[in-house]
Amino acid sequence: MADIQAAFQYVDTNFDRFVGDLQALCAQPSIAAQGVGIAETAELVAARLRSVGASVQIVPTAGSPVVMGVVPGESERTMLFYNHYDVQPPEPLDKWISPPFSPTIRDGHLYARGVVDNKGHFLSRIHAVEALLKTRGRLPCTVKFLVEGEEEVGSPHLAAFAEAHKSLWQADACIWETGYIAEDGTPMARFGYKGMLYVELSAAGANTDLHSRQAPIMPHPAWDLVHALATLRTRDGRVRIPGFYDGITPPSAAEEAALAALPMNAAKLLGRLGLSQFPRGMSTPEAVRALYTEPTCTICGLLSGYTGPGKKTVLPCEASVKIDFRLVVGQDPADIFEKLKAHLQAEGFGHLEVRCTGKAYAYKTSLDSPLVAMLADVAQLVYGKPLAIEPTAAGTSPMYVLARLHSMPMSSIGVGWPGANVHAPNESLRLEDYRRGIKYMAAMLDRFATCKL
Amino acid sequence: MADIQAAFQYVDTNFDRFVGDLQALCAQPSIAAQGVGIAETAELVAARLRSVGASVQIVPTAGSPVVMGVVPGESERTMLFYNHYDVQPPEPLDKWISPPFSPTIRDGHLYARGVVDNKGHFLSRIHAVEALLKTRGRLPCTVKFLVEGEEEVGSPHLAAFAEAHKSLWQADACIWETGYIAEDGTPMARFGYKGMLYVELSAAGANTDLHSRQAPIMPHPAWDLVHALATLRTRDGRVRIPGFYDGITPPSAAEEAALAALPMNAAKLLGRLGLSQFPRGMSTPEAVRALYTEPTCTICGLLSGYTGPGKKTVLPCEASVKIDFRLVVGQDPADIFEKLKAHLQAEGFGHLEVRCTGKAYAYKTSLDSPLVAMLADVAQLVYGKPLAIEPTAAGTSPMYVLARLHSMPMSSIGVGWPGANVHAPNESLRLEDYRRGIKYMAAMLDRFATCKL
Repeated sequence: MADIQAAFQYVDTNFDRFVGDLQALCAQPSIAAQGVGIAETAELVAARLRSVGASVQIVPTAGSPVVMGVVPGESERTMLFYNHYDVQPPEPLDKWISPPFSPTIRDGHLYARGVVDNKGHFLSRIHAVEALLKTRGRLPCTVKFLVEGEEEVGSPHLAAFAEAHKSLWQADACIWETGYIAEDGTPMARFGYKGMLYVELSAAGANTDLHSRQAPIMPHPAWDLVHALATLRTRDGRVRIPGFYDGITPPSAAEEAALAALPMNAAKLLGRLGLSQFPRGMSTPEAVRALYTEPTCTICGLLSGYTGPGKKTVLPCEASVKIDFRLVVGQDPADIFEKLKAHLQAEGFGHLEVRCTGKAYAYKTSLDSPLVAMLADVAQLVYGKPLAIEPTAAGTSPMYVLARLHSMPMSSIGVGWPGANVHAPNESLRLEDYRRGIKYMAAMLDRFATCKL
Repeated sequence: MADIQAAFQYVDTNFDRFVGDLQALCAQPSIAAQGVGIAETAELVAARLRSVGASVQIVPTAGSPVVMGVVPGESERTMLFYNHYDVQPPEPLDKWISPPFSPTIRDGHLYARGVVDNKGHFLSRIHAVEALLKTRGRLPCTVKFLVEGEEEVGSPHLAAFAEAHKSLWQADACIWETGYIAEDGTPMARFGYKGMLYVELSAAGANTDLHSRQAPIMPHPAWDLVHALATLRTRDGRVRIPGFYDGITPPSAAEEAALAALPMNAAKLLGRLGLSQFPRGMSTPEAVRALYTEPTCTICGLLSGYTGPGKKTVLPCEASVKIDFRLVVGQDPADIFEKLKAHLQAEGFGHLEVRCTGKAYAYKTSLDSPLVAMLADVAQLVYGKPLAIEPTAAGTSPMYVLARLHSMPMSSIGVGWPGANVHAPNESLRLEDYRRGIKYMAAMLDRFATCKL
């Protein structure tokens, strides 16, 4: 431990410079959705990797290039860091107190687009590597960086990259892009993500909108869609597609224990949203369990006809809906899509158009993995608190894209916080989270080099 | 008949000037929805009424003024003409071949906004009065004109006007605003209109849209609305609100006969709309009967969440729908609204917001009324064809607003044609329809003065 304390000391001594590095990286826009600054940022990321002695490749894809960096270490062990250098669009610009690409410190927070999502996470790992190198001369294990540039637009080329360059990013474990410290200071770790199937359904009638006086003798695509939708989900939220829940296994004992220990301030959450209770009167523990374990079917968008102010007596000629299914381990989005189509056919809605516009598989690391206990130990050391364990996120991330090619334990930990405003104006990082996050990464690499896996 | 031939001759002799009158009136914009030119047009209408010797009142309402004119006649009989001087907005302007308020003749058609709906109808009746006056010295019966200025925005102040000035417009029969000549040259007469109930339903959840990862533990107003809607109407189009069909009487024998005689070119209608058949495989006679006799429930607009291109994984916090119910005689829109609310309550959707934004009663003149036979006789004289009788329109008009205060037979006949593009760019009147329509009105007034009612 004396050894890691030297690295911690190095972090404290060099912290202002580290923050300066982060400001420099955040000053460079890299908006994948708008094609802004991608090549320039890939070069900056490569330069930053070279600054800690990494051998670097900028690998072209059909979209943004992937920056790969490898820093060799003493043990046979290899840790992979997955990050991304692209950021969300900064709009609406008028809501930013300081400009999104002019990183500004106020009250111990650094404000900038991408400071948490995901440039701060990437650099915290670089800075941890630097602290270890400078205080030891060599890393305890090999570290690989995979930094992609299209995460904010759905990582459309990550799978092709991962397949084509399997050996480049092969490792024994992976730390995923992001993580956070809860409001009460508890460090959080995620060990999986839900999957997703995104579909669009549409119903068509005549080739033009009609005066609604024609109603008795014309098709009503909006009604058609409503009746089709009503067959998909019960009022209680249970998905009615036959076979939808097939293959799902209940949470393991370790997962149940982790879920039971997760903090949720239900009164605060509900109060902020103007709600008095969870659906169906769920208790808080039931809500926590549902949030992490239940697959869902959500109407994200629904449109037909005239939706402006006042009245219009129109019979619309089309109706459409966007639906996301959040899926859990055991559910294959391609299979669910087929089941959805078969269900619609069986219910008499085979004439509706059904398009799949997004697919992602769920992935979970077993909580029995020694990585879990190791991360908890190190969290106790750095944060002085037990690690809170999310067996999976409620949301979706392409962890499975890598995990399906190289089986390895994966965890998402990091330097975010609940008020970070990721994807929103005034995105911010708490500088103390950044300082501790670097130390956490350094200590984790140190322990990882020798822990049993 | 020698007598009416003189009037017909007068129409032919003066026809070019009549068309000039119509061009002048159409050159004055009068867009109720935009508050454009209302007072100016009311003055023009008043001047035109005075030009045939009418005593005129411009009666203020809470909205556009109503112009009332009375031309006394020889018999005790009084005919009421209901018209409106406001027009639909002319947009989109770039679709007009000649500007909407620069009335232009091309190929025997006069193009202008409002030329058919409804200024041509109004003026054809003025010109008929003039022809009778000039060829006889006096009208055979008293004629009253009620010309309102808000028909295109739903006649919001007509009922209050009608109640406050009952004696002003009292009459023995009424010719309603508009009518048309079918594609094959058959003159058409309507003897009623459907009623309407327009409602907006909305469902609410949290006080903000949420990331859809929250789906397992948050309310889903879009699903709530879908399930509520699915209880309103069967897939086959039958309304499921208990009591919805109560009080409806089947068509009379005369109505059935009129419906059976109505022309409908189903192949042409369906082909133009890209359809191969009517819903549920209805035959053409079944479709005609359904169009005129069935009350309906139509989704006019449906909206929730993100409806732009691509994917957004959002759980929308609200969902809303606009619905029109077209009602028939025997259905009270206020009663149907109460039944709708009771139904939603009974089905477990009492928490949805339900607002009534429009109500209109259906009205039908009995086809046994001598007015019907009289109009048919005169049509045969003027058009050389039997009159086609619509016992009611498929659409809605405020006939009941007047009929409930003074019981009288009413019919909608006039100078329109199926290609008139009312409410659309390049609205047009066929000049020969205008010429014959004036004659039809003159002969009708002549016959009306003495016919049994």
